[in-house]
Amino acid sequence: MSETESHQEFENQVTEPEGEPSPGRRRVAVGDLDVPFEQIDLSNGESLRIYDTAGPQGFTAEQGLPPRRQAWIDARVARDGGVRTQLEYARDGQVTEEMRFIAIREGVDAELVRSEVAAGRAVICANVKHPELEPMIIGRKFLVKVNANIGNSAVHSSLEEEVEKLRHSIRFGADTVMDLSTGARIHETREAILRSSPVPIGTVPVYQALERVKGRPEKLDIELFLDVMAEQCEQGVDYFTLHAGVRLAHVPMTAKRVTGIVSRGGSIMAKWCLSHHKENFLYTHFDRLCELMRRYDVTFSLGDGLRPGCIADANDAAQFAELHTLGELTKIAWEHGCQVMVEGPGHVPLHLIQANMDEQLKHCHEAPFYTLGPLVTDFCPGYDHMASAIGAAIIGSQGCAMLCYVTPKEHLGLPNAEDVKQGLMAYKIAAHSADIAKGHPGARERDDALSRARFEFRWEDQFNLSLDPETARRYHDATLPAAAAKVAHFCSMCGPKFCSMEITQQIREMAASAEDPATVAAGLRQKSQEFRDQGGKIYQPVEG
Amino acid sequence: MSETESHQEFENQVTEPEGEPSPGRRRVAVGDLDVPFEQIDLSNGESLRIYDTAGPQGFTAEQGLPPRRQAWIDARVARDGGVRTQLEYARDGQVTEEMRFIAIREGVDAELVRSEVAAGRAVICANVKHPELEPMIIGRKFLVKVNANIGNSAVHSSLEEEVEKLRHSIRFGADTVMDLSTGARIHETREAILRSSPVPIGTVPVYQALERVKGRPEKLDIELFLDVMAEQCEQGVDYFTLHAGVRLAHVPMTAKRVTGIVSRGGSIMAKWCLSHHKENFLYTHFDRLCELMRRYDVTFSLGDGLRPGCIADANDAAQFAELHTLGELTKIAWEHGCQVMVEGPGHVPLHLIQANMDEQLKHCHEAPFYTLGPLVTDFCPGYDHMASAIGAAIIGSQGCAMLCYVTPKEHLGLPNAEDVKQGLMAYKIAAHSADIAKGHPGARERDDALSRARFEFRWEDQFNLSLDPETARRYHDATLPAAAAKVAHFCSMCGPKFCSMEITQQIREMAASAEDPATVAAGLRQKSQEFRDQGGKIYQPVEG
Repeated sequence: MSETESHQEFENQVTEPEGEPSPGRRRVAVGDLDVPFEQIDLSNGESLRIYDTAGPQGFTAEQGLPPRRQAWIDARVARDGGVRTQLEYARDGQVTEEMRFIAIREGVDAELVRSEVAAGRAVICANVKHPELEPMIIGRKFLVKVNANIGNSAVHSSLEEEVEKLRHSIRFGADTVMDLSTGARIHETREAILRSSPVPIGTVPVYQALERVKGRPEKLDIELFLDVMAEQCEQGVDYFTLHAGVRLAHVPMTAKRVTGIVSRGGSIMAKWCLSHHKENFLYTHFDRLCELMRRYDVTFSLGDGLRPGCIADANDAAQFAELHTLGELTKIAWEHGCQVMVEGPGHVPLHLIQANMDEQLKHCHEAPFYTLGPLVTDFCPGYDHMASAIGAAIIGSQGCAMLCYVTPKEHLGLPNAEDVKQGLMAYKIAAHSADIAKGHPGARERDDALSRARFEFRWEDQFNLSLDPETARRYHDATLPAAAAKVAHFCSMCGPKFCSMEITQQIREMAASAEDPATVAAGLRQKSQEFRDQGGKIYQPVEG
Repeated sequence: MSETESHQEFENQVTEPEGEPSPGRRRVAVGDLDVPFEQIDLSNGESLRIYDTAGPQGFTAEQGLPPRRQAWIDARVARDGGVRTQLEYARDGQVTEEMRFIAIREGVDAELVRSEVAAGRAVICANVKHPELEPMIIGRKFLVKVNANIGNSAVHSSLEEEVEKLRHSIRFGADTVMDLSTGARIHETREAILRSSPVPIGTVPVYQALERVKGRPEKLDIELFLDVMAEQCEQGVDYFTLHAGVRLAHVPMTAKRVTGIVSRGGSIMAKWCLSHHKENFLYTHFDRLCELMRRYDVTFSLGDGLRPGCIADANDAAQFAELHTLGELTKIAWEHGCQVMVEGPGHVPLHLIQANMDEQLKHCHEAPFYTLGPLVTDFCPGYDHMASAIGAAIIGSQGCAMLCYVTPKEHLGLPNAEDVKQGLMAYKIAAHSADIAKGHPGARERDDALSRARFEFRWEDQFNLSLDPETARRYHDATLPAAAAKVAHFCSMCGPKFCSMEITQQIREMAASAEDPATVAAGLRQKSQEFRDQGGKIYQPVEG
């Protein structure tokens, strides 16, 4: 996923205060499993709980987070004589603690969680070696999720700084984080991130494997690759992007593309195939990957190494040939008891998105789809978070389960902290609008609460209910800074005389003071009928 | 349209240099009508011409622009004994200079322009008193257009400053501009804007009418209203938003809405109806509006005064009742020879956008649809340009002809120059992605040229082809500032060793050096077949 975004760095240090919820919000823990929510208490006595990804607060990178899943895992291992995957439990009809936790978090029945996991339509990325995790689910019957990428700096940065990037991402709502770090301290960086992460961590093992062979793809082999994977399994990585679908026969299909192969992992494996004139070793040894990953319950994220790098290349033979192969591999992984999601593009014009989603559902047997964007146009570098959020919202509404974010620096350079925030904001909007379109239970509650607050001029409630309260408050204050303005019965757009919401309230009062609305409506209809009876042609002048 | 955004002000003065095209681009005039384009000359000898809204350069607000249409208009009036509308000419089978200009601008046949205007499916907003105009077309078989709103400052600002807001908007691609100015100098402000505007100017006459009755809606009447309209017709306003579809019987339908009536014009007319218990005078006197507007060829923009102000109210009885009335009025205006477009929401969740578009096409007889957004979620004040660009891209791809932009300050305050730019960037992305989806001739050319430049590491070409070259260049330079980096064969994301595009080029060379790609493919397929024949199960280990 999004290998072109690797080596992402925060050019500037994160300076915003982390950890504290917005004023007007507080963190709460719900039920016997302490499921985290942010609670927004409104000025009219109502309150609303929203999904919270930020995790437990107040722990340093050195301390790491409390291992909340450890007791659950230990008890199951002792009882069952070893590790079993969430898929295996689900198939056996067993509802794990993770599933119960997720049901509360999503506001759905635990049986829905179990049955969707059992069917392979949803995954719980949760390595047994990552006990700090707060379980979450990726599947099209659940809330659409967002992934953010982070990576270590080429220049010296402390482990605390690396963990800070993770915290910055989850503070702004990342549901999973991919660690695309490289270089000398790759192991320690990943370790620090995992021990401090309440969200699933994904990696692309070929990056570390390539470093072991000094950047020469043709020197890769399966033993070295499995060795890298084993190291990362043991650390607790929750899902791996693996480009096992880049088959030898697919590679020439890309030769006439406008932008060829743009996935870094895909191009590495393609080069290996061509160098040796052999089939991709991740494909031929796929069973060995499954055996290893099953022992930790690491989820497959089958990489789309041949995804299009521009809209001209979308939905072409190469992309779909690989997608069909990923469907084959999905079945094999399932036979091993492994969980699977399938990665997707990339760059797809608006009118081809549905076909891409349909093809994935059909050929990958409804395994969750996890796409990068897609960007719906290539003409706006600097704004690719917006161009891709359009595609992401659409494919999310069509059933895509997770959206990998794109920052404004995509295709141009390395994102800083503000870019990461902007990318996440665009993608939280895409995911939430897709949730509303899918009719996810409760998705619209927050919108409706905010709209009511807007109509009633409850400005503080409006800010607190916002995706980004700090920005909403700041923008409002730029025009009407006085505290009194925030309780005034008009807004900054119109001023007191023009305000349409104020006029609407008067209309309501006029209607209410007379009689009940139905009677008013009937009366007005009659008057209107009288007018028509008298006036004949509708544009005939009447007394006004 | 978007009355909630009125009184928009530029808090900060526009400080960016205006008028000059981006380096690497130059303005050209094409054909005997001098149709303006920006030409991008690429380093590989190719060049591309793109639509240019900025207009003639180098004229002060005092000078105004040259009256390029004056001779066309004068000749027609002399020949035909008076003003005829573009619709009337089109119906008579006559291709006007405006239609020829538009055909060159859009890269389509002039007969398509004429026939779409004749059918009422497209409008050319071009008051005969606005000779400075560069003609453009709004219709679903043409490029999707974007409108920006401007308005004068409550505090003192010079006419030059007001014209500067117009220039800022058209520099960033606004196809039409609505002047929502109010206050004492409303006439002079509008005059200055019109004389300097190469794009159609729209207004909402009820704002000026309301000022004449000191902000008391119930004091409005048709004579006063026509007087205001006549003044604006004479100045050269190209289209009027008129809330003639807010009928008395519709008003009670809004009483149980979450956010009632949010259109300022709509709420003014609703209050008038309720105060007098009479039908909307714009509806009952609609023929008089038509007679006046026909004499200047001012286009109707039938306002959606009952558009939803939140997703909970989308596609409700009130909205559709008004839309059906707008359909009635469309036919009446057409009978008078007037051009018509129909305004639309507002706030509509993703899954209800298609129904809204379908309803408009059906009941408004395919008159062009002109929507504000729509926003697909209400939960993100501060980011409503993004939330609405998602809806705008979708409805644009479904046939909406013009998109009224939303800035990041929507619902919160008054946009400054940077907000206007951000709103326009989001909407140019939405419009362009819709053009691609609709298969507009040439829409994808720019994307493909940019993608080829990206693949070939032609960084300067990539910047010059970008929606916003300055931002793309600046973001790139933040990571790799040296001029040498812009010709280097790797990009800032991966560095020299990892670059996937570089690896793809090697793949191409390997394929090309051996034999032609078809032969390579066949050879690889055979090898692959051999593998399958030998290996049996696809995940059986083979020598790697």
